[in-house]
Amino acid sequence: MSGLVLTTFDWVPPPPRGFVRDIRIRWALEEAGLPYRVESVPFKERKAVHFEHQPFGQVPWLTDDGLSIFESGAILLHLGEKSEKLMPTDTRGMSDTKEWLFAGLNSVEMASLPWSLCKFSGQSSDNPIFQQFESFLKVSRLPHMEKVLATREWLAGPFTIADIVMADTLRLVDRFDGLTDFPAARAYVGHATARPAFQKALADQMAHFAKAD
Amino acid sequence: MSGLVLTTFDWVPPPPRGFVRDIRIRWALEEAGLPYRVESVPFKERKAVHFEHQPFGQVPWLTDDGLSIFESGAILLHLGEKSEKLMPTDTRGMSDTKEWLFAGLNSVEMASLPWSLCKFSGQSSDNPIFQQFESFLKVSRLPHMEKVLATREWLAGPFTIADIVMADTLRLVDRFDGLTDFPAARAYVGHATARPAFQKALADQMAHFAKAD
Repeated sequence: MSGLVLTTFDWVPPPPRGFVRDIRIRWALEEAGLPYRVESVPFKERKAVHFEHQPFGQVPWLTDDGLSIFESGAILLHLGEKSEKLMPTDTRGMSDTKEWLFAGLNSVEMASLPWSLCKFSGQSSDNPIFQQFESFLKVSRLPHMEKVLATREWLAGPFTIADIVMADTLRLVDRFDGLTDFPAARAYVGHATARPAFQKALADQMAHFAKAD
Repeated sequence: MSGLVLTTFDWVPPPPRGFVRDIRIRWALEEAGLPYRVESVPFKERKAVHFEHQPFGQVPWLTDDGLSIFESGAILLHLGEKSEKLMPTDTRGMSDTKEWLFAGLNSVEMASLPWSLCKFSGQSSDNPIFQQFESFLKVSRLPHMEKVLATREWLAGPFTIADIVMADTLRLVDRFDGLTDFPAARAYVGHATARPAFQKALADQMAHFAKAD
């Protein structure tokens, strides 16, 4: 099948809806105005063909004619290379976009996801491991992001794939009230998620999963 | 200053030595045979100029003539684009390298780092948060990596930057005996770290920090 095809789960339970990672790809595709189709694989019974495309049995993956790509970071980079609306083409703009893309995925989300998982599963704030991750996120990462975001609208100049990752990562922190001491980060999330492309991506993801209820 | 300059800390305490992230860049530079210099910034007192290059006050960063790049993933991608010894130039080989690079950083290390931090800080294995991360790593990630690594020598065909990230990530798990049930992953780490470029990178990092004791 030709063209861009995004594959996600057919259904997920309500709590993660709106946060399943196909949203990052939908968001980028909407920003770029690239046509695409969405296909589904079973959430409950993951088959061999699923693991052939995504070795961890997760979603999303993207096929672009003959090429199948998993990992939302890799898919975003692929789309960034297709559209100037997602990544500048000058050397510095492209390099800045890539470094912030990796910063979102490996410096900020590395700290925010463990924290968010603790919050999501209702762990006690007295737990010493939670406190370790609270400090990792709120001392080692967010104050630095706050300084960066207080001085610029988007991370790499214009809006890019790096903002899709960073805003979606911080949006999950905000869901658990983790940005109350970081007003610039909170404003950045608000600003990013007000974009029509995000609103469309979110509505489409919610409708996709609701359809299977 | 022209050419490639890798900046790391002047000193770190003994426990993380051999695992500081400049090792990923040293390893890539040695594999590619690219000439480079190493510079240092203070570990104990991090200055404004440090944050200008690396907004989280971490290391490493790389300068390549006028371009300054932080995030080891972004630096590795930059070096991969400079040398065929680090990333194939055909469409599929390049795409596979990128997806496995992101998989190492965002799927595997996202699970292994929280687990390793718990181990490093001596948290109880009865702690419910530790058990959550133990399951994330040993049920949701490593069995899938084990299947992949049982069938191939390197992740994307030839040895690439993706193997540098994945092997270094799994090496930290192995340090805390986390690979005992995953023989293919363990063999992969052994195989990768036996490469002369890794041995040189490790010896150089150890010598660099020891010099400042």
